Amino acid sequence: MRQTAFQHPFDTATALLAHGDGRFTGQTSSDYANMVGPFGGITAATMLRAVLADPRHLGEPISLTVNYAGPIADGEFSIDVQPARTNRRTQHWTITLSQNDVVTTTGTAVFGTRQPTWSDTEVSAPAAPPAESISPTTFDGFVAWTGNYDMRFVDEGGLDLNAGAKSTSTSTMWLSDKPARPLDHPSLAAMSDAFFPRVMIRLGRFIPAGTISLTINFHAPTAQLAPLGDRPVLATIHAHTFGAGFSEQNTQLWSDDGALLVTSHQLMYFKDDTTL
Amino acid sequence: MRQTAFQHPFDTATALLAHGDGRFTGQTSSDYANMVGPFGGITAATMLRAVLADPRHLGEPISLTVNYAGPIADGEFSIDVQPARTNRRTQHWTITLSQNDVVTTTGTAVFGTRQPTWSDTEVSAPAAPPAESISPTTFDGFVAWTGNYDMRFVDEGGLDLNAGAKSTSTSTMWLSDKPARPLDHPSLAAMSDAFFPRVMIRLGRFIPAGTISLTINFHAPTAQLAPLGDRPVLATIHAHTFGAGFSEQNTQLWSDDGALLVTSHQLMYFKDDTTL
Repeated sequence: MRQTAFQHPFDTATALLAHGDGRFTGQTSSDYANMVGPFGGITAATMLRAVLADPRHLGEPISLTVNYAGPIADGEFSIDVQPARTNRRTQHWTITLSQNDVVTTTGTAVFGTRQPTWSDTEVSAPAAPPAESISPTTFDGFVAWTGNYDMRFVDEGGLDLNAGAKSTSTSTMWLSDKPARPLDHPSLAAMSDAFFPRVMIRLGRFIPAGTISLTINFHAPTAQLAPLGDRPVLATIHAHTFGAGFSEQNTQLWSDDGALLVTSHQLMYFKDDTTL
Repeated sequence: MRQTAFQHPFDTATALLAHGDGRFTGQTSSDYANMVGPFGGITAATMLRAVLADPRHLGEPISLTVNYAGPIADGEFSIDVQPARTNRRTQHWTITLSQNDVVTTTGTAVFGTRQPTWSDTEVSAPAAPPAESISPTTFDGFVAWTGNYDMRFVDEGGLDLNAGAKSTSTSTMWLSDKPARPLDHPSLAAMSDAFFPRVMIRLGRFIPAGTISLTINFHAPTAQLAPLGDRPVLATIHAHTFGAGFSEQNTQLWSDDGALLVTSHQLMYFKDDTTL
């Protein structure tokens, strides 16, 4: 009997071929397609994976900024990563994703080694019933990438574009990969981008919108993620402000046992020709 | 009679000499010295100013990420800025600050053109009495850069390292350049970094700490800043989490007439050998 090893679609989508000196190539995956090009979260995860795959990297991801400069076409792309500076405890990387030598995405990453210190978390996880008590929301036929996530909304914050305008953009959901996959830094990077643009929630209708710049701060090391396995994270989002074609939204990812794993900050663009 | 034009210390500290093709040189300023090297805010402002000084830039600052990779020595530094991609509405820049070809600071900036759209701000400015009703706090002899700011704390959140541990890192102050200077994007970038590391406030004592990565989102165009003149901004900060030698703190800058001008997100390091 021959067994075929299962490779999770997330690992296929973020797989990279190493060419040395910080150069990698990859292929977009139809599983994580968005309306135009790939889901921004999978791009962030793939850029992070490139640094993780570079033998020069030290420590673990601390902070990642990804700037979505232009569309990524279906097919092959290149990622170039370079350590700009290596210190005793931290290492700074620059990351560039390109296709045919045209830059589509820029980024920087900070890696570092954690050590025991005083600790405290001043923010609190939102109240939520257990994930098992909530039915998953599906977005069949909308955009492909949502099919790779199990999303269970604690509130009415799903994407119902017929629900009318809402007075708040705050929303919370239990979120996990589908099929289940153990949490790691690349999967958390992708999950940081899993909420729909808040402008659509506020206006209650489809608006062309997307991420321009996404900063993800990782607060948990691999040793803290490992025991969580593939259990869902509690993801919560709120927007600070909207105006003049731009908005900012901020996401927290919590473990199901109450630890803050990730905070992320997204600067979005939106087009709105009809509401003035 | 001859009049000598006054140049504000902020403009002296961020002054750059253009060498073409995105290369600039500048000089550190003792006015904005921190304990080691320059105040991080002045470095962010200088990097932003380099893009503003490049004739290729389009639109206005939307988002700036600065990664503090290594110390900047007193003296000359070089800044290299390059437009990674120019779109119809947005332009993405990479920024590198170096000394003797050693990278000390990396960054990315998004510039863009704003246009009228639906707008709303979901967060609220903290309550504060008028700036004029509060006495400025001075930090004589601590670090030079604080001498260039007028800081009027709404709460007890000043830096009193003998005050003992506090249960919250939240603090609010009226903040302006000293001497007064009209607000612009570089000055707001610097002000985003004007709060002391929250770990010191929480522990109530001096801790080696500093910014590793700072993302600043600008929500107001120049046309909105101009009428504010040199009036103080209401700056408020809170920390999300501390642990394993890293922490995240988040700042909002509000105009005195209640508009959200800037949100920023800082990933900090700290060393803490004594509290375990």
